[in-house]
Amino acid sequence: MNRTLIAILKILAKENKIIGSKEIAKRLKMYGINLSERTVRYHLKILDERGLTKIFGKEGRIITEKGRQELDTAITVEKVGFIINKIETLSYLSDFDINSCKGKIIVNLSYIPKNKLKKALKSMENVFNSSLVMSNRIVFIEKDDEAVLPDEHVCIGTVCSVTLNAILLKHGIPVISKFGGVLEIKDGLPYKFSALIRYDGTSLDPLEIFIRGKMTNVSGAIKNGYGRVLASFREIPAVCLNKVKEIYSTMQEKGFQGILVFGEPNQTLLDIPVGIDRVGIIVVGGLNPIAAVEETGIQTYTSAISTLYDYQAMIDFKELSNELK
Amino acid sequence: MNRTLIAILKILAKENKIIGSKEIAKRLKMYGINLSERTVRYHLKILDERGLTKIFGKEGRIITEKGRQELDTAITVEKVGFIINKIETLSYLSDFDINSCKGKIIVNLSYIPKNKLKKALKSMENVFNSSLVMSNRIVFIEKDDEAVLPDEHVCIGTVCSVTLNAILLKHGIPVISKFGGVLEIKDGLPYKFSALIRYDGTSLDPLEIFIRGKMTNVSGAIKNGYGRVLASFREIPAVCLNKVKEIYSTMQEKGFQGILVFGEPNQTLLDIPVGIDRVGIIVVGGLNPIAAVEETGIQTYTSAISTLYDYQAMIDFKELSNELK
Repeated sequence: MNRTLIAILKILAKENKIIGSKEIAKRLKMYGINLSERTVRYHLKILDERGLTKIFGKEGRIITEKGRQELDTAITVEKVGFIINKIETLSYLSDFDINSCKGKIIVNLSYIPKNKLKKALKSMENVFNSSLVMSNRIVFIEKDDEAVLPDEHVCIGTVCSVTLNAILLKHGIPVISKFGGVLEIKDGLPYKFSALIRYDGTSLDPLEIFIRGKMTNVSGAIKNGYGRVLASFREIPAVCLNKVKEIYSTMQEKGFQGILVFGEPNQTLLDIPVGIDRVGIIVVGGLNPIAAVEETGIQTYTSAISTLYDYQAMIDFKELSNELK
Repeated sequence: MNRTLIAILKILAKENKIIGSKEIAKRLKMYGINLSERTVRYHLKILDERGLTKIFGKEGRIITEKGRQELDTAITVEKVGFIINKIETLSYLSDFDINSCKGKIIVNLSYIPKNKLKKALKSMENVFNSSLVMSNRIVFIEKDDEAVLPDEHVCIGTVCSVTLNAILLKHGIPVISKFGGVLEIKDGLPYKFSALIRYDGTSLDPLEIFIRGKMTNVSGAIKNGYGRVLASFREIPAVCLNKVKEIYSTMQEKGFQGILVFGEPNQTLLDIPVGIDRVGIIVVGGLNPIAAVEETGIQTYTSAISTLYDYQAMIDFKELSNELK
């Protein structure tokens, strides 16, 4: 089953009542699927034929028991999907425009105990002043209407480095996210990767794993230039290198950063080989501030590469930090 | 640089004095490299030409400064090597013969605080009585001549499930270790994988990651048939399926176990697709007893797929457990 069919089944299962194709087309947009009513009807016919949906009256559909079972299996498979799919889906769904700075970017969401917030902000301060974050903008959610926040926790969202992929993709440049890693910093410079996990080979986010495993030393890297930070290794086609540098300049003008090193075409970068006619780049992990919080012994719950969030609704880290001082 | 050249440099760096090719050939055996003196001299010439070693007198060699630098870089690269290399190297190096039960098998080594040993043994007891381990034999090291043990710790080694690969390989059957995973158990049976990491895409052992991330519930799986255990997904060529079942019977007669499910040729197994003309098998993680220890709150240090150990020198878990009761 393809993504569209699964999304339609999800909508029908959630509603649990008869819905028409017009309504389904509308809701599909929330799954990032833009289809005409006519195309939706075409997909519904396929589902009907497979006995997964049943027609009721004038184009209304309901999900069958078989449809629910099929959905269960599909969701199971989806769950052990690899992180690379999440990266690619969100890169595609992001509509952020770097020139106007409008639209949705990709954020990591972390939940921090309310009574540890001040201490947490303090430990993040130096990270947000360093080159180890994508941006100074954060999401801050204290009160929660939909009760998504765990009890006595606040939510802090950092700009996910996959936002870089999304921005480049909008310019027609495909980025391959190869590895999430722990990058050793020596004399203030990237030295080597001490751990690597392929994005297309893991169902858990590598950077979440490294944080949980207490493998980082972000504060050390900032304090005296020796430490271990979250970073990722990506590849771009060599032919795009100049264009990427150009777009990255625009990003920097707009307050973004994150590329630590550009490699050379066909050359290994920190001992990691690249594909033919490709260039390696090393990008900071958006979760470095959270890693610094964990290093002080505060336990957080983090969902990396989590969701899309309106960039204009984000606030400057300093604003929050000054406000709570 | 290939593995042989690196191994020779390692030997020279460790000795830090002039060694002859005969001695080098002897020591290379410990790296699993069996070469004649003549072939060693051929490799030494290559190293001489690259300025990494220097000849002294009659065939004696010493490592140069350049050689040491080269070795440093090589070791760096080796360090971020993927776990699959460790699996394949140890499978090849193991000389265990299933019929005579003689030779070295592959073990995971875990360090447990001495004062928590009794509690740890208790939590492992049910696991060793279940189908969730490879074997009841363990390594137990209490006193340590070479001071490798951390202070106030003992070492317990469990049979690593890669031993299965080693045994099959000796029969000419290549096993592909695809994923390490967390397997959900429902009604006492394997239900689905809730997390997966590819062995050829990670520098950290997946099962170590899952233990550290507190993602298991081995004791639940044993107590009431609902839980999450360490397991891996492997593939064998379909043509070998009957032979594998035959060898596995012999293994069972000799006190081994570990294969939870055999798939069918070309069929997905627990929703995971296999390669063309291949069969999936699900194998228990050798570290399930250690996961159960961690679930009681005892912190262990574990090195999975760690080393080769003489099977005849291992003891029955019950022996140790009764002795300390």
